Amino acid sequence: MAGKEVLLNAFTMNCVGHIHHGMWTHPDDHSVEFNQLRYWTDLAQLLEQGLFDGVFIADILGVYDVYQNGIGLTAREAIQLPVNDPLMLVSAMAAVTRHLGFGLTANLSYEAPYPFARRLSTLDHLTNGRIGWNIVTGYLDSAARAMGLSTQVAHDRRYDQADEFLEVSYKLWEGSWEDGALVADKARRLYADAARIHTIRHQGEFYRMEGYHLTSPSPQRTPLLFQAGSSARGLAFAGRHAECTFVTGSTPEGMRNQVHALRQAAVDAGRPADALKVFMGVGVIAAPTAAEAQEKYREYLRYASPEAGIAHFSSSTGIDLARFGLDEPIQAGPTQAIESVTKTYSGWTRRRLLEQHAMGSRYPLLVGDPSQVADQLLRWMDVGEIDGFNLSRILNPGSYEDVIRWVIPELQSRGRYKTAYRPGTLRQKLFQHGDRLPASHPAAAWRAPADRRG
Amino acid sequence: MAGKEVLLNAFTMNCVGHIHHGMWTHPDDHSVEFNQLRYWTDLAQLLEQGLFDGVFIADILGVYDVYQNGIGLTAREAIQLPVNDPLMLVSAMAAVTRHLGFGLTANLSYEAPYPFARRLSTLDHLTNGRIGWNIVTGYLDSAARAMGLSTQVAHDRRYDQADEFLEVSYKLWEGSWEDGALVADKARRLYADAARIHTIRHQGEFYRMEGYHLTSPSPQRTPLLFQAGSSARGLAFAGRHAECTFVTGSTPEGMRNQVHALRQAAVDAGRPADALKVFMGVGVIAAPTAAEAQEKYREYLRYASPEAGIAHFSSSTGIDLARFGLDEPIQAGPTQAIESVTKTYSGWTRRRLLEQHAMGSRYPLLVGDPSQVADQLLRWMDVGEIDGFNLSRILNPGSYEDVIRWVIPELQSRGRYKTAYRPGTLRQKLFQHGDRLPASHPAAAWRAPADRRG
Repeated sequence: MAGKEVLLNAFTMNCVGHIHHGMWTHPDDHSVEFNQLRYWTDLAQLLEQGLFDGVFIADILGVYDVYQNGIGLTAREAIQLPVNDPLMLVSAMAAVTRHLGFGLTANLSYEAPYPFARRLSTLDHLTNGRIGWNIVTGYLDSAARAMGLSTQVAHDRRYDQADEFLEVSYKLWEGSWEDGALVADKARRLYADAARIHTIRHQGEFYRMEGYHLTSPSPQRTPLLFQAGSSARGLAFAGRHAECTFVTGSTPEGMRNQVHALRQAAVDAGRPADALKVFMGVGVIAAPTAAEAQEKYREYLRYASPEAGIAHFSSSTGIDLARFGLDEPIQAGPTQAIESVTKTYSGWTRRRLLEQHAMGSRYPLLVGDPSQVADQLLRWMDVGEIDGFNLSRILNPGSYEDVIRWVIPELQSRGRYKTAYRPGTLRQKLFQHGDRLPASHPAAAWRAPADRRG
Repeated sequence: MAGKEVLLNAFTMNCVGHIHHGMWTHPDDHSVEFNQLRYWTDLAQLLEQGLFDGVFIADILGVYDVYQNGIGLTAREAIQLPVNDPLMLVSAMAAVTRHLGFGLTANLSYEAPYPFARRLSTLDHLTNGRIGWNIVTGYLDSAARAMGLSTQVAHDRRYDQADEFLEVSYKLWEGSWEDGALVADKARRLYADAARIHTIRHQGEFYRMEGYHLTSPSPQRTPLLFQAGSSARGLAFAGRHAECTFVTGSTPEGMRNQVHALRQAAVDAGRPADALKVFMGVGVIAAPTAAEAQEKYREYLRYASPEAGIAHFSSSTGIDLARFGLDEPIQAGPTQAIESVTKTYSGWTRRRLLEQHAMGSRYPLLVGDPSQVADQLLRWMDVGEIDGFNLSRILNPGSYEDVIRWVIPELQSRGRYKTAYRPGTLRQKLFQHGDRLPASHPAAAWRAPADRRG
């Protein structure tokens, strides 16, 4: 029996330098055009031609100011600065596509549930149910300061806050308007039935509110929920809430352990192990022949910036890597922005990190002809037990064009990639169990009694 | 000499019932399709064919729950409920137009300046400088409760908060990135020069922050500023900040007094009297002949809901009008949502209000053949000394189609409406003094020294 079909998102961001730092300087890279709508509508159409499941748009609030204690290199290499709001791109991209999903990163720490829930519901309506939310809580002190706080809320407390934020959001999305509330009958002059629209009341540790959801039920109600936490607390959060998780790893075998832990976390939260689709971050350099792929790779290396890569990494870890000698083992200080990342790399030298970031990033990089790339992707799929990939751009949009031209036909010929979109919402396309969250998901508990089915 | 050209915005909202309540039930009205992207992209293209200056999208956070102490009629007649986020519509509408401006209502009371400034800057980039912000502070207790407050901030204090919100926003928009900060030179590997990107520090009564604006300078930097306050405090605020004001009135002569007061407020704030463009809310029923227009009018009246009109009005005033007998003079209670409105209508009876809301609204309604409508519009322009109109939809989009077909050619033949768009940003099109705010505007004080010109 053939293995699972590969799920595929483009992994991008409303900025110039996203993952593979320095590549914006390549003559064929178009990232500097990110302020133009056409750049995004062209990308959306390209991805839909390639039957991508979605475009996953990262985001960051704050700046990377840890490396060399400032934004000098961040500005010079456009390391996720400037960075524009991802949600503003969606309606234009949706208008030129029919199936492409949108995975939208939004940091809940600085949002209020009431207007935020409306924003995502609006988009879910306008896209006919193609919205996913990548739930993040932020990790930058620079964001906290820009929001008027002296420092950010501690890591595990941010997850407590996120749990409560989601509870309020579920109440609004799932419980405020019954399915039958909207009638829209002109002859009877009855648009909606107030008896079936319920006030949401919440009084918790972080949030209180009393009011109706402002938006009528959108195709998915709760958007498809993405999450990317890797700490113990993050894992528990993903197990409880996430439908898709976004992971990174360095070996398929290590990935499998990570995936098992995630699925176990779902089971521990009372959900099926396959309630989670796991997407892995990866970069691909593909060409018709192995030699051409290697030649491309060597050419790209001339534009990549390993230093920008580790400047980005400095903010992920909270460690100014510029402070260490090239061969001095790196030691974490008391502040560690992303604890699990810091742990993994403790004791490495700056030289080793620079080598690892040769392509401006530490993402796994697959280089080869169509067959070689397909082999590697499927090894990650089958040994790592993941469900698909968030494909980062090396050249933009060249990397996507290459994958669509060379790799996807190869995967299709092996029966490992769809040959047409499935009908329905983003959730229905990925899970085939309906447009709404299943009864095993905690959001279902907040549905109005009339809407509790299956 | 011919008078001024009429400026024209479509006045709409991301909802079903906006101003002319009840008209959603008309067979030719398409408002119930507001969740579909196509509805908005079609509208944008229609308006650009008619050389409209902009589409002004209202918004409300909260629900109208004053009338009969609940949302019964609000839901039944879709009185601005459901109401979706207006900003989510923009990129799709911008992608199918080149010149149309976007006047976006956003309530600052529940926003943080740092992410909000990024959101509008993102849109200003994506639209090539076509964004306006209609600054509102809200007036609904239901919104305050939904945001976790027991009641809203008092009226004049909301304006104090707004003044400070704008100060922080100006710092971000005008002062964080110098004009020369963005280099984007691939050969020199220099995207931006950190020496020309400045940290914004603010510590005030309502806001504190420390950080860089996340978005590079957009074509207009500060979006075109709309405002609609009519109280004494609102007038002072408009005089200081607004470039366009949105007013309503019942006679051209009364309008002139209002306009003089607004221009005086600008002068009092050290700005030229013509720094303000004044737009008046109006509804138009136009047809080739006067008889056909009157026939349309009579037909529309059968669908309009005067009761829904005064239910909306109940929330504007904070007075449950259902509590009064038909002929009992209405008296304001201690809570008055919009003080100036309440004052105007004190002593009226419910019967008189229902008559005034015959078309579901108390907006001035102009009915007639092209010449009659043009006469009336120009009388408002020339006697009222306004600059243009926010044209509310009676039938949607039929009202816009009728105005484009019948009224605009008449205004053009009189030399009172443009025959082509001017080049440049929304601000440049309206004021012809450049893309950025002039030196007389308070925002200019926050520019980096290198950028202070003119």
